[in-house]
This record gives sequence, C-alpha cells and structure tokens, in this order.
Amino acid sequence: MTDADLPFDTKMLDKLAEVAVQVGLGLEPGQNLVLTAPVEALPLVRRIAAAAYRAGAANVTPILSDEAVTLARFEHGTDVAFDSAPDWLYKGMGEAFANNAARLAISADNPLLLKGQDPDKTSRASKANSTAYKPALEKIANFDINWNIVSYPGRAWAKQVFPDLPEDEAVAKLAEAIFAASRVDRADPVAEWQAHNARLRARTEWLNAEGFSALHFTGGGTDLTVGLAEGHEWKGGASEAKNGITCNPNIPTEEVFTTPHKDRVDGVARASKPLVYQGTPIENIEVRFENGRIVEASASEGEATWKKLIDTDEGAARLGEVALVPHSSPISQSGLLFFNTLYDENAACHIAQGQCYSDCFVDEIASDPDKVKAGGGNASLIHVDWMIGGPETDIDGIKPDGTRVPVFRKGEWAQEV
Amino acid sequence: MTDADLPFDTKMLDKLAEVAVQVGLGLEPGQNLVLTAPVEALPLVRRIAAAAYRAGAANVTPILSDEAVTLARFEHGTDVAFDSAPDWLYKGMGEAFANNAARLAISADNPLLLKGQDPDKTSRASKANSTAYKPALEKIANFDINWNIVSYPGRAWAKQVFPDLPEDEAVAKLAEAIFAASRVDRADPVAEWQAHNARLRARTEWLNAEGFSALHFTGGGTDLTVGLAEGHEWKGGASEAKNGITCNPNIPTEEVFTTPHKDRVDGVARASKPLVYQGTPIENIEVRFENGRIVEASASEGEATWKKLIDTDEGAARLGEVALVPHSSPISQSGLLFFNTLYDENAACHIAQGQCYSDCFVDEIASDPDKVKAGGGNASLIHVDWMIGGPETDIDGIKPDGTRVPVFRKGEWAQEV
Repeated sequence: MTDADLPFDTKMLDKLAEVAVQVGLGLEPGQNLVLTAPVEALPLVRRIAAAAYRAGAANVTPILSDEAVTLARFEHGTDVAFDSAPDWLYKGMGEAFANNAARLAISADNPLLLKGQDPDKTSRASKANSTAYKPALEKIANFDINWNIVSYPGRAWAKQVFPDLPEDEAVAKLAEAIFAASRVDRADPVAEWQAHNARLRARTEWLNAEGFSALHFTGGGTDLTVGLAEGHEWKGGASEAKNGITCNPNIPTEEVFTTPHKDRVDGVARASKPLVYQGTPIENIEVRFENGRIVEASASEGEATWKKLIDTDEGAARLGEVALVPHSSPISQSGLLFFNTLYDENAACHIAQGQCYSDCFVDEIASDPDKVKAGGGNASLIHVDWMIGGPETDIDGIKPDGTRVPVFRKGEWAQEV
Repeated sequence: MTDADLPFDTKMLDKLAEVAVQVGLGLEPGQNLVLTAPVEALPLVRRIAAAAYRAGAANVTPILSDEAVTLARFEHGTDVAFDSAPDWLYKGMGEAFANNAARLAISADNPLLLKGQDPDKTSRASKANSTAYKPALEKIANFDINWNIVSYPGRAWAKQVFPDLPEDEAVAKLAEAIFAASRVDRADPVAEWQAHNARLRARTEWLNAEGFSALHFTGGGTDLTVGLAEGHEWKGGASEAKNGITCNPNIPTEEVFTTPHKDRVDGVARASKPLVYQGTPIENIEVRFENGRIVEASASEGEATWKKLIDTDEGAARLGEVALVPHSSPISQSGLLFFNTLYDENAACHIAQGQCYSDCFVDEIASDPDKVKAGGGNASLIHVDWMIGGPETDIDGIKPDGTRVPVFRKGEWAQEV
C-alpha cells in the first residue's frame, strides 16, 4: 500500500489529482467533498484529499470500498442480504449534495469481480442498491452539483485488460493508458483540457444549431432510429452545474451526448463491444426497439444478466442517452477493451438504457421535472451505457421536416466545424 | 495488505471476528451493521463482514478511515477545514441506528497521529466533529442499539507501545496482548466470555445492593469524593440494549461503572497514567473539583490540549462516569501502557469527563432524559476517560446515612462476592 510498490511514475498521480480537483470538479473553497473509491486507489485518494484541501475544501470524506467485503456478502450472506443496501449512507450522500458538497468517484474496480455469482443474487443486490442510491444519484444526474469520475490502475482491472502480461507490467500499461487519456502525461494538463473542451463545445454548438429531431444509425449490424427528446440539448466536455460551478464530469471524455425521446426509438441495435455490468460480462448484445421500448433482446454471453438489467423497471428497457464518439478518438485508437464504461464509452458511439440527464435539455425544461417527462426524458433506477459505434458507423441527422444531414460517415464526423 | 504480511497467527483474527459478532454485538439476523475502522485493519474488517453475513446481517457497511487523509487536512487545509465535519455521514449513521443497525468500531489507530499539530486546529476539528457526531453518539450512549469496540494491532500503535522492538516484533507483541485480553487465545472464547460476564455481574449486583450515595477515592495523590447520581445503577460486562439485544460493548472489558452526580464531586484527582487525546499525549493531569466542576487543572505535558478539552462545553469540566478496575486485572498486570482508552481504562479505576451513560440508571430514569438530568446525569459533546487508580488506591463506599464500607484496599476489591 506504499507508493514504492507501484510500477508506474507516481508523479502522474499528483498531476491526476490536480486535474481531478481543478478541471474535473472545479472545486470551490468551502465545499465539502464526498469521495468514493476502492481501497486499492488509496495512493490517488490521498493526493486528491491533499489537492482538495489546498483548493479550500471544508471536509474531504473518503468512502472506501473493498472487494473482499463485497464478495463476503455473496460467499456468506443469508437470503436477507441480497435485498439490502446501505440506505442510511446514500441518504446521507443525498443530504451532502443538497448542501452543495462536490462528488468525486475513483473508478478502479475489478470489472469481473462478480463473474460466476448467481445472477439472481447480483440482480437483487444491484436493484436494492440502485433503489437506495436513487435520490442521491438524481442530484448527480440532474447536475445539481459539480462532480467528476477519474480512474486509477487497479491490479485486477489491469490483469483483465492485459491478460497476457505479468501483473506489474499490466498495471504499468493500464497506468500509461489512463494517464494519456486523462491528458496528465502532457506538460500542462489544465491547458490541454481547456483546448479539448473548446473542440467538444464546437461540436455541441453545431449539433444544437442543426436542431435534429432524430438520428439514424447504420453499420455493424445496427439500423436504429433514435428520436431526440423535445427541447433536448447536446452537451460535452466542461459544463456548468446548477450550483454555478463549471466541471468536467468524466475524465477522460471524448463524447458529445444528449437525451433521446423515450417513446421514439425504433429498429435494431447491435453492440460493437462487450458490456461489463457489475462484474458480469455481456457479449454480442442485440436488441430491437419498438416505440422506444426493447421488445426483443439477446446476448451470446450473460444474456440472463442483460435481460434482468433491462427488466429492472419500466424505464430500463428505454433509452436515457445517445452519445457520439468518432472512431479516431484516442481511446478507440488504443485498440484496448477496458471493461470499464468510463473508457469504453469514449471509444465508440453509444446509447444508454435508463435514466436520462435532465441537464441535456434547454434550461427552461431542465429545471422542471414535469417538462423533462413531457419532452420524452426517460426515468429509471439504472443508467447503463453500451457501445454501438465502430469504423462502419454512418449517422444521418434527421430534421423535423425530414431533411437528412450526414453526421458520421465510416465512424468519423462528416463535417468540419 | 495481504494476510501473508502479518506477523501473527491470523487464525486469531478469525476467532476475534466471531467474538466481536457473537459476544460483542450479539448481532441478530436482519440487522444492518455499521463498521468503522482504519484501512490498516482490513484483515479484521473482512473477517467481521464474513462473520456478520453468516450471522444473518442484512448489510455490512465499512466506513474506513486513512491516517494520511486525516493528516492531509492538517498539512494542506485552509482555515475553513478546521471547523468542518462530515455532518451528512454522521446524520446517516444516526438514521441507521434509529433503524436498529448495530455498530462496531475497530480501534487500531496511531495514538500519536496528531502529536505536534497546532492544538487550536486539533481542538477546533475535534469540536466540529463531536458536534456533528453528537446525535449518532447519543444513540450509542443511550444504548438504543447493540454496539461493540474491538482492537486490531496497527503498526504505528504497536511501535508506540513497544518503542524498542523492531516493527514486526512490536506488532506481534501487541497482537498477543490484544488476543489475550480479548480471550480469543483460549479454546472456547465464547464460554470464557460468559464466565467473565458472570463475575462482573456479581460485582455490579453487590454494588447495586449496597446503594452507595458516594465513593471516596484516596491514594496516589488523589483525594476525591465522587457523589453518585440519584437512581444510578452499576453496569459491567454484558448488558441489554434498548433494542432488546444483549451485547458486550467493549472487548476487552474489566470494569464496573456507573454515573456520578454532576454537581457532587469534590477534591483532588491525580492521573495514574498518561492520557492520549486525539493524538496528543497529556501527562500528569491534576485537577481540583468543587461542586462537581473542575476549578483548577494542570498537566506536565499537553496542558493546553487538556484545558481546551475540559473547556469544550459546560459539561466537559464535570464527570459522566466513574469506573472500578482492580490493579490485578490482566491488562494492568501486563504492565503495558497502550495509549488507547479501550485498554488503559481496563487497567485502572477511572473517571470520565463529559457525557454520562443514561443506561447507568435504573430503568424508570434511564428512559426519560428529563429524569436523567434531574438525577444528576451530565451532558456534554465529549466523553473522555482518564485513569486515577493504581496499587495504592483505597475506596470507601459512603451510604446515604454516612456509613462507610471498604470497596477497594490497595488497588483490590475489599470484599469477596
């Protein structure tokens, strides 16, 4: 657990901590910070705590998870354990966010931790957790407060991404990929993020000006029309939370994204990459949507988990997000499958089952849950991204009058902006 | 962080986890468990989680602290950081206890972590923390739910107890002392705890039958009359919480204890051991009480911290507990100074500044905060034990009619029971 044991340059962790606090959170003096992380990420947790206190944080509270404790429930728990969740902790977090605490999550977990566990137990545990976490998650999904996710090169995760390398080399390779994608391997990461945010903003401004009412995806087995919510707004990169603080929720991020209409999605979508959901790999997903809802679903591996997932509640079978990422994005070009949504979603165009981001509406709608609903914003306990984009992806933007505008051709933006 | 690195027999941790869950908590099926511990104690945290799930726990939630994060506040925090606390987390804990969650704390911290920090900062941080934690602490102090503290041999703590030994040997020695005092080095620890609880119960029954209105301590520089609260009750060992569950709050425990009258303490008390308060050592405390309140206070080291402590609020200068421990107790006979209240308080008779335990009243009073107050029960943000007993300690019990009964002579019980 000491820095000396880490097979990578720990100065990069110092830079990642500064980027997380300054760019990711835009932490303001006097804010509390709620920081969730696996215990293994302590070297980064400690640096983020220091950076946050230097930035004037009132209180930094790490909530550390441990994989052995997570597994203890599945190995030793009696029946009651699988319908339970730490309601009190999530309620407390919701209270913290209501009082303007910032939220930082470090993603580093073993993506396959729960592989091989009884899908009924993982599904019940996940549903209990989602139900308890919902009020706090809504404050994040509604962008009430500044929040951020960054990654740390965990050992089990690294072994999953680089199964043929010795563990230390795998960790070093994953660290290198994380530091590159997070732009902390550059001389001035904060300036790099400003330039990157400006590029993403140019894309969202173009999409918002075009005013598409739907996108039509083809290629790679997908032929899907995604109607966009009424009053939707494209977002990407830095964005201003309702508390007035500009933050970068995801580090890295390469996507621009908006809210689909929950009733206006039709056609077939085929996954271009595997999805790992709470430890279970789901391969070769294929679904058919009718009037916004999945009516047929299959997967070559993990099908039971996938079907339980989209059966979580009424909104789980509908879309809450559509996102565009060119195939040339650096994460895509790395050629790696990270088994981690924060990375894999930034390698390909994707859609998400479940809860929409109310922030992806024009302000007048975003601030009124009834208007979000009326505009076609979906609601669910879950929000799970899955990848449908690749080198063959073509996308047409469809305007309200039926006019089609090329948006993507062969996996790349079709227009300069 | 793997078991293989631990310089002691980890089977003892398995037994300690079972004792903590079965004897310490008496955990009942369906209870949630809130478990606080330093990260270093993970080998015990994991075993307790497994034992709790086997016992039918609904949800086990570890809240793990890290010393480097604690220090980051003092090294990097701006002024606002020292008047802040994770209110949201403590409020959540209070909610958990209100919903019948059990509470387990693992004590393993470096007792001198904050030595050398600015006493103003440590005092402000401590007060902010105590204020935020008060509603949750009250549910423990009032014994609303079953709770328990056990120890784990942390490395920095071990080095403090055994400064002349190499680190691994120090940890092994501290582990041995913890396992012996917690009775897990015996063949049947649960049966040993039943017998020990029966001995402590015989003492409390004798004291309750005698009905003393005050105790007079002499010896070792102390000459102190401690009036007992009206309707006080002596407690020790296993006890039934208000949720109906019998638990052993402290493992180890050698004390019997009750509630003093907040206005009826007079004379001089001299500490027989150093006190370590939130990382700061306080040596050779001497105080004079008048009408229950400390009116003169000194210490040869840490005097500023001590004075700030008893100045926390009105109740901090008054007593909330008086406890009797014979000098022959195993922890006393180890001859070690543990710099940890859970151990040191079980080596000597002691008193505690601050909040009383309402549970140390007869039932009719215990259930009514107004009656607790009217009976002389003290209230404060703090509860800090300090040792006044030793081999020279004599104690007389004083009955309401003035009759004196020998309770202790030369540090030992004066009567067989």
